Amino acid sequence: MAVQPVAGDKFSFGLWTVGWRAIDPFGEATRPPLDAVEAVNRFAELGAWGVTFHDDDLMPFGSEDSERQRRIQRFRAALDATGLVVPMATTNLFAHPVFKDGALTSNDREIRRFALRKVMRNMDLAAELGATTYVLWGGREGSETDAAKDVRAALDRYREGIDTLARYVIEQGYQLRLALEPKPNEPRGDIFLPTVGHALAFISTLEHHELVGLNPEVGHEQMAGLNFVHGIGQALWQGKLFHIDLNGQRGPRYDQDLIFGHGDVLSAFFLVDLLEHGGYEGPRHFDFKPPRTEDIDGVWASAAANMRSYLLLRERARAFRADPRVREALEASRVPQLSVPTLAEGETVADLRADRAAFEDFDPDAAARRGYGYAALSQLAFEHLLGEA
Amino acid sequence: MAVQPVAGDKFSFGLWTVGWRAIDPFGEATRPPLDAVEAVNRFAELGAWGVTFHDDDLMPFGSEDSERQRRIQRFRAALDATGLVVPMATTNLFAHPVFKDGALTSNDREIRRFALRKVMRNMDLAAELGATTYVLWGGREGSETDAAKDVRAALDRYREGIDTLARYVIEQGYQLRLALEPKPNEPRGDIFLPTVGHALAFISTLEHHELVGLNPEVGHEQMAGLNFVHGIGQALWQGKLFHIDLNGQRGPRYDQDLIFGHGDVLSAFFLVDLLEHGGYEGPRHFDFKPPRTEDIDGVWASAAANMRSYLLLRERARAFRADPRVREALEASRVPQLSVPTLAEGETVADLRADRAAFEDFDPDAAARRGYGYAALSQLAFEHLLGEA
Amino acid sequence: MAVQPVAGDKFSFGLWTVGWRAIDPFGEATRPPLDAVEAVNRFAELGAWGVTFHDDDLMPFGSEDSERQRRIQRFRAALDATGLVVPMATTNLFAHPVFKDGALTSNDREIRRFALRKVMRNMDLAAELGATTYVLWGGREGSETDAAKDVRAALDRYREGIDTLARYVIEQGYQLRLALEPKPNEPRGDIFLPTVGHALAFISTLEHHELVGLNPEVGHEQMAGLNFVHGIGQALWQGKLFHIDLNGQRGPRYDQDLIFGHGDVLSAFFLVDLLEHGGYEGPRHFDFKPPRTEDIDGVWASAAANMRSYLLLRERARAFRADPRVREALEASRVPQLSVPTLAEGETVADLRADRAAFEDFDPDAAARRGYGYAALSQLAFEHLLGEA
Amino acid sequence: MAVQPVAGDKFSFGLWTVGWRAIDPFGEATRPPLDAVEAVNRFAELGAWGVTFHDDDLMPFGSEDSERQRRIQRFRAALDATGLVVPMATTNLFAHPVFKDGALTSNDREIRRFALRKVMRNMDLAAELGATTYVLWGGREGSETDAAKDVRAALDRYREGIDTLARYVIEQGYQLRLALEPKPNEPRGDIFLPTVGHALAFISTLEHHELVGLNPEVGHEQMAGLNFVHGIGQALWQGKLFHIDLNGQRGPRYDQDLIFGHGDVLSAFFLVDLLEHGGYEGPRHFDFKPPRTEDIDGVWASAAANMRSYLLLRERARAFRADPRVREALEASRVPQLSVPTLAEGETVADLRADRAAFEDFDPDAAARRGYGYAALSQLAFEHLLGEA
Repeated sequence: MAVQPVAGDKFSFGLWTVGWRAIDPFGEATRPPLDAVEAVNRFAELGAWGVTFHDDDLMPFGSEDSERQRRIQRFRAALDATGLVVPMATTNLFAHPVFKDGALTSNDREIRRFALRKVMRNMDLAAELGATTYVLWGGREGSETDAAKDVRAALDRYREGIDTLARYVIEQGYQLRLALEPKPNEPRGDIFLPTVGHALAFISTLEHHELVGLNPEVGHEQMAGLNFVHGIGQALWQGKLFHIDLNGQRGPRYDQDLIFGHGDVLSAFFLVDLLEHGGYEGPRHFDFKPPRTEDIDGVWASAAANMRSYLLLRERARAFRADPRVREALEASRVPQLSVPTLAEGETVADLRADRAAFEDFDPDAAARRGYGYAALSQLAFEHLLGEA
Repeated sequence: MAVQPVAGDKFSFGLWTVGWRAIDPFGEATRPPLDAVEAVNRFAELGAWGVTFHDDDLMPFGSEDSERQRRIQRFRAALDATGLVVPMATTNLFAHPVFKDGALTSNDREIRRFALRKVMRNMDLAAELGATTYVLWGGREGSETDAAKDVRAALDRYREGIDTLARYVIEQGYQLRLALEPKPNEPRGDIFLPTVGHALAFISTLEHHELVGLNPEVGHEQMAGLNFVHGIGQALWQGKLFHIDLNGQRGPRYDQDLIFGHGDVLSAFFLVDLLEHGGYEGPRHFDFKPPRTEDIDGVWASAAANMRSYLLLRERARAFRADPRVREALEASRVPQLSVPTLAEGETVADLRADRAAFEDFDPDAAARRGYGYAALSQLAFEHLLGEA
Repeated sequence: MAVQPVAGDKFSFGLWTVGWRAIDPFGEATRPPLDAVEAVNRFAELGAWGVTFHDDDLMPFGSEDSERQRRIQRFRAALDATGLVVPMATTNLFAHPVFKDGALTSNDREIRRFALRKVMRNMDLAAELGATTYVLWGGREGSETDAAKDVRAALDRYREGIDTLARYVIEQGYQLRLALEPKPNEPRGDIFLPTVGHALAFISTLEHHELVGLNPEVGHEQMAGLNFVHGIGQALWQGKLFHIDLNGQRGPRYDQDLIFGHGDVLSAFFLVDLLEHGGYEGPRHFDFKPPRTEDIDGVWASAAANMRSYLLLRERARAFRADPRVREALEASRVPQLSVPTLAEGETVADLRADRAAFEDFDPDAAARRGYGYAALSQLAFEHLLGEA
Repeated sequence: MAVQPVAGDKFSFGLWTVGWRAIDPFGEATRPPLDAVEAVNRFAELGAWGVTFHDDDLMPFGSEDSERQRRIQRFRAALDATGLVVPMATTNLFAHPVFKDGALTSNDREIRRFALRKVMRNMDLAAELGATTYVLWGGREGSETDAAKDVRAALDRYREGIDTLARYVIEQGYQLRLALEPKPNEPRGDIFLPTVGHALAFISTLEHHELVGLNPEVGHEQMAGLNFVHGIGQALWQGKLFHIDLNGQRGPRYDQDLIFGHGDVLSAFFLVDLLEHGGYEGPRHFDFKPPRTEDIDGVWASAAANMRSYLLLRERARAFRADPRVREALEASRVPQLSVPTLAEGETVADLRADRAAFEDFDPDAAARRGYGYAALSQLAFEHLLGEA
């Protein structure tokens, strides 16, 4: 059946998703802890391909080394037993109070040094487990008052931090690429590198920029009211979509981490369309929170729902692209024309200026009268989304 | 008196600000047309230093060449008489229906060519009038449905367009730098290059990226709920703050173009602080709309209000920076420490890894107990804003 | 075929929808005027049941009486010829500059009086044409600075205005009910009665509150990030859903008036579900704007798309409610239990206090462990939306 | 000195504000528990007048009765010693997992019953301590999917719950009035009674509506992008401003609970102006969170900052109202005219219709030309805010 996930779908989940105990700003945990091995086993049963983790998901902050090793071994054994891979890992630089003013951009230099070391230690493990992407979400890098940080100094430190980590990866010969995860706010009032764009711009200033890309999250861009599909388009265009976090959000409000598809459905449809037809070959990674109302059965129902949603949307996106009416509508909207360069091959600026057809003899009013047919095209997409072939 | 603007303040205004006839999505014009020469004269009387324009502000779209020349001459004469400068000019690529699907990224190639020519023609005038910045706001570059545009093709065309214009500037030997103006939405459902970050990232891909920077607008970032001061900080950090549009906005909603200071006041305070103490030496350009309720007296009262607001905020920002209590509070918050590199001079990654003080012997719980004093610092800023020295 | 609209669907459209010439804050008209008779004919062909209008849609502001009569006659003739009904009419109290500070709450008393008369005149026509709902959208009732209006005085005047109009309706014996249409902002910085809630609260203070209800618009509530389905639920609960404006919006930003279904799709699904199964029997009225990119063919394609979207969503909502798995899931989520009163029949407060099972012997931890099954229920809704039966 | 709070200022604080241990969705506590008695003492030293609490702030959920009594006694002793009053109390119906699907509107009837009993028990204490307001914030009353709740059933239960509690208050002869606190979202995806308006509307349906009013919170309305001053104006207008929660927020995002004044400053200015000059005589209650970055000194600095901010804004609001230039500007803006009824005394609808000056002889174009002077008025407010007399 089409909606049964298989390894080739490259579905992966963070341990912290099903492991979330549902503590929120106003409430205590509603669920008991979930063992990582149990999580790996259930993910495998459901058809997932990979599992990802923060260091502290596997080994509580401050674990003794022996305990750390014991936990890693159990985790490895579960991976081996199930065949699940670890495509990505990341560092918890936000939960412990030491990071309350940030990690790589904390005003406190000692804390910045500690943070770098904490990342490096988990990079070792990530490399050992075969991960190829190392995510950095700077959730605590930011401020609540603009007086608290000189943004330029903060970006200097942020760059220094990422440069240092990239150098570490190179020196160790790890097959890891770094992926920055932008977010506009929460838990800080304003977070540095708030969007896909800001992070891409920052990356262009890095020493080893070729090694650093993005891990954009659906909900994070939508918290700023931005079009996630456009953001992913730009990230792909700049060759920087290294990884992706799929989930759902209902516009500018707190970070909801809904099941993929349970937020902005139209955007989810076009996102799957872009991922499937835009050359992205990385993991489809779900970073969601099972609703706080759910017990453990609900947790696993919600995990499965993410994959089903993706697969159903993939079916509909494929049908959309295959539909001859859609091709006609795209043609009528002149969409293919956008891929034709504006200047002819070899045309110079002087040529363009000499072309009277381009300006002097161009009739803007006539051109203005042509419709673009977007209403019809948009409706075709809507109907395909609804499975109305 | 401190709040009387002088030329050295570098205050400039768009002709289209006071010239706005107050047509909005639900209403007709409430004010008669305003002659450009009259505008120049009044700006000069009020203490402004510069005036800026779209081609179509000066000369209606489609004007005969003779009429165009006549209008340019009158405008020049007014500039000469008043001493006002033209630091910036830009192109109207949004009002005429020919641009209804965009200009540089319209699906229609003929329209893209026409748009480039329209820009070039006004660049000639901008250069002739001594402008040093040429702004490009791509207000119509976007879509309402993700089916309408392949974002990557759109960015290809956008880059081709900007590259072509940069080449033109170089070939003509103009002293113009290009400044892109991001905006998330309105008039399009979603606009390409929606934020300071996305535009900075795009610029890093350009052929003549050194010639292209930003013209960020207060309200445009705030429509996405983003921290404008952080955005300006990053633009300065990347050497790309070529120009700035000052106005006010009250969060995510339609583009309000309020008087500077009449939106998010705390952010305006920290913005002026950053512009005055962060090395920006360009124009303080107001891009606002006199409220639709105002007659011509209200129009000029609102123009003057922008400058007064800036000057009052500048006074308060200076007092804030000069206050010894503030310096102490910054020290207590360890703000200066953020300017100290995380690695010591010459320290290598291996050195950092070998430093037991950084990790093995570091006491995160002790470090976590130190407070940052941001509440006190934030309150000092608030009280300085309120003139409570 | 299921998606062919028929009169029984009660689909109606404003003349101003297809008649919108696509003037926006940054652009001129892209389409020629559309004759009202032509509009009526096309609506009829497409399967619509009703047409609605502002006075100024039919007769330009300030029309001579004879011209006004001529236009009314032509319109009536078209209605008679097509069988289209006029279920609702409304007044344009926002386009002419006289209303730039509001109509019923303008600071200018003369303008308030004029506004009342303008409404009454069009109420006469509405009654004559058989309308049963008269909508009042106070788009200009508001302010950009809180200094401009004493809100309490404004609400006094608003109440006086609505009371006066209700009295007029009663005195004339018209079969009209009034429906207020809330909106948070645009074209004013802040509009009075910004949400369904504020308007409902205001209505409770009116002299003839039984005669006054709501005309909520999808996009208006979503501009405030509010759940439209919840708002409609409360309006129904208070017996005040007199009429409804269907369209689409993509969160807090400018008022988009997208085609119904082309905004928040999940919300549209649950809205149709509520309208169809919640006892609402009034018109399904579309208040959308054909995209500015469209020519006249696109205008009619977009009009048709609204109705198709509604019908497709209705099909899916019916399938959802009929699905035994859904019923089981609702049961598992204890949804039906919410309809059971919390106190038993005849139970007093003292009884409740004496019931040890309710408190002393109640085990909150045990109750807390029960999951609600919302993830599964939500996924069932998502899959029905996608036509995955 | 003007900014030293005194009892007459009626400043009160929730125990949970300074007592917040700074657990957030991504982070652990950064501060140790704060003893309630210590809090009372420090509040008194700082010049506060009152202290408020949730039941569980004083006595952990599930405390034995003896422990409960012991804690109450200690608290009372501290109140007696300091002279602090308890003007308000409320119930924690959100932290314990039993309330994960709501309290008064949980789908689970047993939980609804338990919730009512929990409220009643704390009402007893509130009355005993002399409180006159009992707040109900329904933070968990809501849903993440519209399938989870029939909104009308939920409102039935909500009404039943409030009616039951009001009956209890009456039967016990308590001098308590109930105050509902609206919020749009967080911790639920959507919360019932999301705004001041929805709650006012709901109240109008209650059995003892005269006993029930509002406790609006600055940040909650601003999370929906709504004008808080307008909301408070409507609440006052409907006689329902029973209590108020002062804090700061930076637009639609997570609930920030910033220090009062550190959010939207202009709105805070107009809010203080309205509270001081609009007849509100209740507590000025701060419901804020000391930033997570702060240690205990920062906690108390932030508590003090709230009161200083209020007092400074009060000074500026008074100066604004006393300034003859402001009075002139208000007159020029015709603000006083809004308090003049639109109909003359005794004027009937028929009279208005017969008044040719109101319509037939009215010149809308002439009236439209008059400006409203709002730009000047707005600037006067801005300058008074900045202490620029």
